[in-house]
Amino acid sequence: MSALDAAAAAAPVLAQMPPWERAQFLVAAADALLAAADELVPLAAEETGLTEPRLRGEIKRTAVQLKLFAEVAAAGDYMAVRLDAADPDFVLGPRPDLRRYLVPLGPVLNFAASNFPFAFSVAGGDTASALAAGCPVVVKAHPGHPRLSDRTAQVLNTVLPAGALGVIHGQDEGVAALKDERITAAAFTGSLTAGRALAAIAAARPRPIPFYGELGSLNPVVVTPGALAERSAEIVKGFAASVSGSAGQLCTKPGLLFVPGEFDAAAAFDGVTPHRLLHPGIADGYTHRRDEVLGTPGVTVTVEGSVTAGGVTPTLVETDLATLVKHRDTLLQEAFGPLSVVVRYTPGEPLGAALTELVEGSLTAGVHVAAGEDSHWLRELVTALQALAGRVLFNGWPTGVAVTPAMQHGGPFPATTNPTTTSVGTASIERFLRPVVYQDAPPSLLPEPLRDDNPWNVPQLRSPAGQSPTWGSLAG
Amino acid sequence: MSALDAAAAAAPVLAQMPPWERAQFLVAAADALLAAADELVPLAAEETGLTEPRLRGEIKRTAVQLKLFAEVAAAGDYMAVRLDAADPDFVLGPRPDLRRYLVPLGPVLNFAASNFPFAFSVAGGDTASALAAGCPVVVKAHPGHPRLSDRTAQVLNTVLPAGALGVIHGQDEGVAALKDERITAAAFTGSLTAGRALAAIAAARPRPIPFYGELGSLNPVVVTPGALAERSAEIVKGFAASVSGSAGQLCTKPGLLFVPGEFDAAAAFDGVTPHRLLHPGIADGYTHRRDEVLGTPGVTVTVEGSVTAGGVTPTLVETDLATLVKHRDTLLQEAFGPLSVVVRYTPGEPLGAALTELVEGSLTAGVHVAAGEDSHWLRELVTALQALAGRVLFNGWPTGVAVTPAMQHGGPFPATTNPTTTSVGTASIERFLRPVVYQDAPPSLLPEPLRDDNPWNVPQLRSPAGQSPTWGSLAG
Repeated sequence: MSALDAAAAAAPVLAQMPPWERAQFLVAAADALLAAADELVPLAAEETGLTEPRLRGEIKRTAVQLKLFAEVAAAGDYMAVRLDAADPDFVLGPRPDLRRYLVPLGPVLNFAASNFPFAFSVAGGDTASALAAGCPVVVKAHPGHPRLSDRTAQVLNTVLPAGALGVIHGQDEGVAALKDERITAAAFTGSLTAGRALAAIAAARPRPIPFYGELGSLNPVVVTPGALAERSAEIVKGFAASVSGSAGQLCTKPGLLFVPGEFDAAAAFDGVTPHRLLHPGIADGYTHRRDEVLGTPGVTVTVEGSVTAGGVTPTLVETDLATLVKHRDTLLQEAFGPLSVVVRYTPGEPLGAALTELVEGSLTAGVHVAAGEDSHWLRELVTALQALAGRVLFNGWPTGVAVTPAMQHGGPFPATTNPTTTSVGTASIERFLRPVVYQDAPPSLLPEPLRDDNPWNVPQLRSPAGQSPTWGSLAG
Repeated sequence: MSALDAAAAAAPVLAQMPPWERAQFLVAAADALLAAADELVPLAAEETGLTEPRLRGEIKRTAVQLKLFAEVAAAGDYMAVRLDAADPDFVLGPRPDLRRYLVPLGPVLNFAASNFPFAFSVAGGDTASALAAGCPVVVKAHPGHPRLSDRTAQVLNTVLPAGALGVIHGQDEGVAALKDERITAAAFTGSLTAGRALAAIAAARPRPIPFYGELGSLNPVVVTPGALAERSAEIVKGFAASVSGSAGQLCTKPGLLFVPGEFDAAAAFDGVTPHRLLHPGIADGYTHRRDEVLGTPGVTVTVEGSVTAGGVTPTLVETDLATLVKHRDTLLQEAFGPLSVVVRYTPGEPLGAALTELVEGSLTAGVHVAAGEDSHWLRELVTALQALAGRVLFNGWPTGVAVTPAMQHGGPFPATTNPTTTSVGTASIERFLRPVVYQDAPPSLLPEPLRDDNPWNVPQLRSPAGQSPTWGSLAG
């Protein structure tokens, strides 16, 4: 049976399964993944060039994600059950009994990322959130780690229900699956070009489906004059680590740093060991982008870095705001790899307005402030950062995304194709659910979450009768 | 200043306004609308041909909607505030302080509907939910009621903040606005053809935006053998009223009725007075669809009805499941007007599977059952109805949508372009919001809803430290 056939067959089974059973298999999947770590981590290192310590951390994060979504499924809040009692005296005339909850969309297609072979691949966040929602998942494996993808699925399929998780390979196969009627939603992590092309395919289907793409991000960070005076050495060190880690192949790498004065970063990049890029396509793209940046008039090279067959070391350039404006088409594109652009600004100039004008939507936007710092200028800057990003962070670096209920990993286009959702954190489950309301249903025909005896013990929010809007009078 | 300029200027003002101030102007808008009812209702009747009693009810519903969204705004739950405390002992390493809430997207473009000149037009549900979210609204007026649209906006603008509500006219102007960079989301109620075309434009922008279209729906209803035996006269009467009301120009009109035996509906349609259709375009479309249905082999005319310059009376045809399958391209298209297709089925045949195979996504799906009726066949049918619709209703008719928190008005394509949202009910506000998380922000730089002293008094859901996932052990 093909992965799509199996997913379609599994969809009604998963949808009707009590949420604690989904929780149990998600926990079992997490445990199976960790139990196979000694086999999977070296395989991932071989295929991706990422280091073993990083991959050990990532497989643990992936297991935590699966268990977090087990908790989300078991708690049942995600169903957002609302029960509105029938109301014969409703202001607009008799109101029926209405019971609403969220149900799984159906089979989900997950285009895996290159740069997180565990956390955003076969067993990753998109898979965990879709399974928790009750949707079978077909993963289109990333070509950068095909063997790991297959082996991860085999490990998980020792404990998952039949058809809940399948893997396919190849671009044509991925496109065919995206066009397949049985697929009801798709998630994607990758490049702007590929993401836009796939989003267009999803929208042009005879029956369009939701497409959740995470495409690219500059992640601007601003250092205020106060912060630079207070702790420039610490800021330089953190910046260098955030640009260099995993060879900059992170969607939240700070690609743009605004500083109001001297910023001696070169030394902090000394001694960074060469790191292989994930695969030849990424190496080509990075080389091309780096050449463009280095060839831009008005750009000074702070750290030249290197790109060789053995790996890359970071490249850092510096410029001013006028040059950034003039060469925005070159300098304000994401470079997926260890390259960042430092921009000098003049203290007091309206940087918030400049960011709004220049920088496209981003996953994150950050600012380093001095202790107790506050000013009209700073508040305008923070407002501008919020307008362009899904995560606004202070005195830190955007790489390293905490997996917690409040996390937001998304942002205005092109960070994501849909700024109303997130791909990290518990709210990511909402992408794979749709609301259904039952009106005046006989009790015996209600789904479990909507019944008054609440056999699945899910939170139920009740609106009793007699609660017409109370603001002023409705006479008229 | 153009409506778009004004909306863009108003966006930051509305976004930073405390929610109770938005609530106050929504209440004032409701009161202003009702105060102008004696002027607006006759104007609406003249432009749309809808009856005064219907329009009196609709303007009241529209005011209730505005007040309901005032309550939603003031309560602040819609912001979905989550505060995750910093946790030095988190399983994956130290976790930052994370504070998440939903913020308005920005200016919203609302393509108004023809058939609800109040409730889904200038002052309607899409406008009310966007304003409650903090988004200025530009309404592209429906050409069927242009003067009412302008006059409604004038009435509301006596109490709304500057730029919060603007009206534009014309198809080219609507498309230009949809392409305008300052527009951040669009809502649409109308035909499948227009909705798909506009959705494609929204998706092809340099920066795509969310597009929420409600496009068309057959609203199938099934009568079980038990229900037919128990109360066929009552069912016939309700069906005739639901098909005939507002000349069938409702998105939830039952366009397909499945009955297991004799169904003498003709008499119930006697004496329906002719009703003008909303505008010439709808009259042309209805005439064309009706001719197609009447000309389909295997279809018997139960009530021929009429289409004249003075108005239309309902048309009812009957056929069987085999004919429906054979002529699905003709019979399974929405006819926007008072036409419905009655389909005879054989008791016991797998009707749920047939519906899944035949009927596209729908706003509603209904079933009439006998008291205490339950069976495997019925449960399979209800599962199939849930799969194809956003509202599953029992022993009632889909026309007449209650405006309550639990209402769901949406469904799989083509009912809507996005099945994860609703255009009626309090959850419709979610379409115009996006999440933002603040990480490690100094208290003085936090937005009001995220502060510990909670000056806006919004519900805040807190995850304390020490709550790593608890399912099993993470050793490994």
